[in-house]
Amino acid sequence: MRVLGVDPGLTRCGVGVVEGSPGRVCTLLAYYVVHSDPGDELPVRLLHLDRSLADLIAEHRPESVAVERVFSQHNVRTVMGTAQAGAVAVLGAARAGLPVQMYTPSEVKAAVTGSGQADKAQVTAMVTRLLRMSAPPRPADAADALALAICHVWRGGTRARLTGAVAGQRRNGGVR
Amino acid sequence: MRVLGVDPGLTRCGVGVVEGSPGRVCTLLAYYVVHSDPGDELPVRLLHLDRSLADLIAEHRPESVAVERVFSQHNVRTVMGTAQAGAVAVLGAARAGLPVQMYTPSEVKAAVTGSGQADKAQVTAMVTRLLRMSAPPRPADAADALALAICHVWRGGTRARLTGAVAGQRRNGGVR
Repeated sequence: MRVLGVDPGLTRCGVGVVEGSPGRVCTLLAYYVVHSDPGDELPVRLLHLDRSLADLIAEHRPESVAVERVFSQHNVRTVMGTAQAGAVAVLGAARAGLPVQMYTPSEVKAAVTGSGQADKAQVTAMVTRLLRMSAPPRPADAADALALAICHVWRGGTRARLTGAVAGQRRNGGVR
Repeated sequence: MRVLGVDPGLTRCGVGVVEGSPGRVCTLLAYYVVHSDPGDELPVRLLHLDRSLADLIAEHRPESVAVERVFSQHNVRTVMGTAQAGAVAVLGAARAGLPVQMYTPSEVKAAVTGSGQADKAQVTAMVTRLLRMSAPPRPADAADALALAICHVWRGGTRARLTGAVAGQRRNGGVR
């Protein structure tokens, strides 16, 4: 399963591509940070992000896309940019005909570190270890995108196993 | 000048198309409300809005697009949906190669009613009058989009006149 993870941001948008299957080690394929200039107008910034993501999808041909779900934060201005960039990512995946799954930050942290309260350093350390990288991803913004992609591979696997289990139970008449 | 105005919203997105020139009466060409089901998944909703706006741009061939600038509101969930829908509108216009201008709600209110603090009923009444409609637009969500389009026609004209005035001053050596 090849997954493209997106940690949305208007100024810096992290993108990570990994391949793996549930319960196995994930392989790092690529990671990027798409930058846009805060001094540029919004249409220019959104168009640049849209085109960059479309290029990355065309280059890496993921089977699905995982995007971080935006929640309220203290800084409303930051939330707005994150929501706008997230919409561009979700729309871009949908236009490419790819399934999109969204995860909250704590779901992602829990998936890669075992704790939904883990800090950024811990997430980066685990991503580096899980993908057998010789050094943490640089720029650091890509670490969250890689964590999202790993989370999706594993959770997708979890869902697939659950579905399989339920299907098995149904066949056996075990579901009440 | 033909302008397509967008009052962004995820569940209801108002769209209005008017034609006019600065200092003249505007003509109503069309208005719509693009609906999406809150029960549907985000990728489906954003894709529906994107395609609807692309169809409307193709049908009406506006020269520019005006989108309401989203600000912080009390309800963070509403702000997020508005920011996401606004990003789809801005990106859609940019992808179509159209210039996009954003206006705050109070700029729009001031343009059509003379007061930045005008309420929704007052904006609707003025839009109905300015476009010589026999009755207020239904659904009402379209009124704000029409007001945005009118605002852009008039403000575009204002900017053009200012630019002309400054150019004139420059030619005459009148700018210090």
